[in-house]
Amino acid sequence: MIELDESPTMVTVGASLFADALSAQVASPLQVQWAPPVPGSDADLAVIAADGRTHAASAESVRRLTAASPRWVDVVPAREALGLGPREFLHAGPPVAWADASGPIRGALAGAMIYEGLAENFEEAGRIAAQGGISLEPCHSRSAVGPMAGVVSASMPVSVIEDEENGRRAYCTLNEGLGKVLRYGAYSPEVIDRLRWLERVLAPLLGATLRKRGPVDVRSLIAQALQMGDECHNRNRAATSLLLREITPDMLESGARSEDIVAAFRFINGNDHFFLNLSMPAGKVAADAGRDIPGSTMVVAMARNGTEFGIQVSGTGDEWFTAPAPPVKGLYFPGFGPEDAGLDIGDSTITETTGIGGFAMATAPAIVLFVGGDVSDALENTLRMYEITLAEHPFYKVPILGFRGTPTGIDATLVVRSGVLPAVNTGIAGREPGVGQVGAGLVVPPMSVFVDAARALARRAAPQGAPGRSESRNQ
Amino acid sequence: MIELDESPTMVTVGASLFADALSAQVASPLQVQWAPPVPGSDADLAVIAADGRTHAASAESVRRLTAASPRWVDVVPAREALGLGPREFLHAGPPVAWADASGPIRGALAGAMIYEGLAENFEEAGRIAAQGGISLEPCHSRSAVGPMAGVVSASMPVSVIEDEENGRRAYCTLNEGLGKVLRYGAYSPEVIDRLRWLERVLAPLLGATLRKRGPVDVRSLIAQALQMGDECHNRNRAATSLLLREITPDMLESGARSEDIVAAFRFINGNDHFFLNLSMPAGKVAADAGRDIPGSTMVVAMARNGTEFGIQVSGTGDEWFTAPAPPVKGLYFPGFGPEDAGLDIGDSTITETTGIGGFAMATAPAIVLFVGGDVSDALENTLRMYEITLAEHPFYKVPILGFRGTPTGIDATLVVRSGVLPAVNTGIAGREPGVGQVGAGLVVPPMSVFVDAARALARRAAPQGAPGRSESRNQ
Repeated sequence: MIELDESPTMVTVGASLFADALSAQVASPLQVQWAPPVPGSDADLAVIAADGRTHAASAESVRRLTAASPRWVDVVPAREALGLGPREFLHAGPPVAWADASGPIRGALAGAMIYEGLAENFEEAGRIAAQGGISLEPCHSRSAVGPMAGVVSASMPVSVIEDEENGRRAYCTLNEGLGKVLRYGAYSPEVIDRLRWLERVLAPLLGATLRKRGPVDVRSLIAQALQMGDECHNRNRAATSLLLREITPDMLESGARSEDIVAAFRFINGNDHFFLNLSMPAGKVAADAGRDIPGSTMVVAMARNGTEFGIQVSGTGDEWFTAPAPPVKGLYFPGFGPEDAGLDIGDSTITETTGIGGFAMATAPAIVLFVGGDVSDALENTLRMYEITLAEHPFYKVPILGFRGTPTGIDATLVVRSGVLPAVNTGIAGREPGVGQVGAGLVVPPMSVFVDAARALARRAAPQGAPGRSESRNQ
Repeated sequence: MIELDESPTMVTVGASLFADALSAQVASPLQVQWAPPVPGSDADLAVIAADGRTHAASAESVRRLTAASPRWVDVVPAREALGLGPREFLHAGPPVAWADASGPIRGALAGAMIYEGLAENFEEAGRIAAQGGISLEPCHSRSAVGPMAGVVSASMPVSVIEDEENGRRAYCTLNEGLGKVLRYGAYSPEVIDRLRWLERVLAPLLGATLRKRGPVDVRSLIAQALQMGDECHNRNRAATSLLLREITPDMLESGARSEDIVAAFRFINGNDHFFLNLSMPAGKVAADAGRDIPGSTMVVAMARNGTEFGIQVSGTGDEWFTAPAPPVKGLYFPGFGPEDAGLDIGDSTITETTGIGGFAMATAPAIVLFVGGDVSDALENTLRMYEITLAEHPFYKVPILGFRGTPTGIDATLVVRSGVLPAVNTGIAGREPGVGQVGAGLVVPPMSVFVDAARALARRAAPQGAPGRSESRNQ
């Protein structure tokens, strides 16, 4: 008989290979292996590299982004929070006119017009919109973000996210749940009825709960959820669970009608994506903290409207760099296939912009069952993103990588220089208005938007030691 | 400008090494590298190997264990569920007398006697117990399990877990929360008051909720929690969250007093270990399904009482094989150190016995912050356990290992043959009665209990093709 004084050592070759490979990578920084820069971009990259401001400006951008402390403080009507007029509508992605709008955006706009009492049906809404009877603006232009079509109208309630560091605010609608929903371009009566329930029952209850309990620390919830298998873009099951634990006691004591409280709990409980509409504005308020620093090459927005994919960069203000929206490679719901799919859409890429979502897929291996691929893809996505980012997030950690911070703060010039594009996972909307979600998958952003951003950064670059060439920060 | 049609391939050496190592191990079974058997056990192992029943019997044991479908069906007083008389007490681990009982068991027994009105204080309880005024029995002997001291008395409410496959039941007390609690040997008035609240408020509310909603599928909750960073022994944050989501709507509609419902929600919400007292009886009812199969070498119980560590094996009935309880290596709470620690204690090793807990640590890398070690230890613990187990669990999966089933069903002869001991993580109780929890860590079971079990199996072995030598299954 033998008694061991301590834990026996490894006895399998395979296991130790795995553990060794892991420890080696956890213990030391990844070796960086540059690919040649995108042809034609060398001159721009050289000018930016010679700009004495670049390094410090980008470092300050990502410092501000990662220092943000987003808190959920209230739920109020969009007309109040965003100053939206009765005929003003926001949408996801870079600017787009009705004539160029994708099916999901048209469907969602029509639904929002019906909801606001501006139209009776899709056809009437389309006529009014085509005649310029409504005004369209990106969510991003009003400190807001919207998943998928991202349509916001005056009566819709929005969550208010406040950065405790600097008082800045960002906004997002409440998540409507699954199935036929406005954000995927559906506009049937059940969709409109649900929007009214959100406005009349859920929003006042959540607002009252938050005012009673005080702010919910969204950064802490994301940090915990990343240790519980979420990446907080397409997997939010842990975060939604933790959120319910945070708010339920005060919801119960809010003084609201008991049947409304039960309905609210069941509604949130029935939709694991509920938290997405908080992780998105949490990202927005953090990314906005890093905006408008002359010389900074950090991406502060990536967003798509189903027609175009666009980015904004800190050093180039509100300018959008756009290219045609790419298709999504993924898994389809039963009854749908690639021929039913719209192009890439939504502001939810704000998650990747701020170090979670596709950038944190190593925290969420189970997500491959939803978006496709296998577990090693999830790990590789995260590891690859360290190549193009400015920092490792101080609060968002990847347990399986030895609690390394998630790769955070995309450097547009590193993307161009390395040829590595941001890893994005996403839902897939039906291409026609009215259909809804048809699947989920992975998308590769167009390289040209990063090349164009580098060109614009180069145009504004200051010679070494001199101030920047550009007078105005907004074009 | 270049546009990529598909995702770029890996650009880092380190990353691809990691992914390759992972995929290689996920894709093909681990190479098995036998160590020499424990000296002196060769003859027993040879006899068992020659027993024609062994292979099929062990396979049937683990088939029954992994087919179990544990559901939480009710909460009722222990006197009803377990037939406990007013002076009958259950405790964790193998049988122990008061004279040999560890500090935590003495403290918890005294607390339970005070709670039952049999004694006024610790000293009086000790005198009564020492004079044989109470009877002691292991939880395991009444289809129950108890964490740490595991003391159960007649008035305590217990959860009823029913295996939907075969109707078998197992029982466990409600988790009392953190800090000074009976299960860690504390017996102060706050401990007794909380036990009364559990009995008078929480238990009736949970019972009413379960009878209203129907059973909670505990197997499904464990399966999901393993994809959310729990291993369901020392980390139950995801499982407790999912449990709250399951029961809250019906709790709200149970007709109970609103303030009791809020108090119940806050109580469960305040204690991420609440689910442990469901994962344990879920393991118990599954392990019991694999019991009492002649020739089976599968371990059906591992349990400790702070004095001894004991196991039971399917082919040897209710016989306990015991050895002195080992110390725990781990992390201590502020103000405590190894000199304050009691020896290994509790029935919670039923989780490891059934393929979760220390066996599923690869699902819960964040647990190393609680029990010590680093992330590669968590992975290695799980990988090493495939060496000594009979099956990969069909419902409990490890995402990071490509959704491989957890290593399940310890084969006592494989332990002896390979020298690999079960990986166990655990809380650490203070050595003195009344102290409570002082830390958490990892423990290495004594090899001798597996050697002794192999000897007993060999004694009962049948020559090839002949029936077993042993007439009675219970010794």
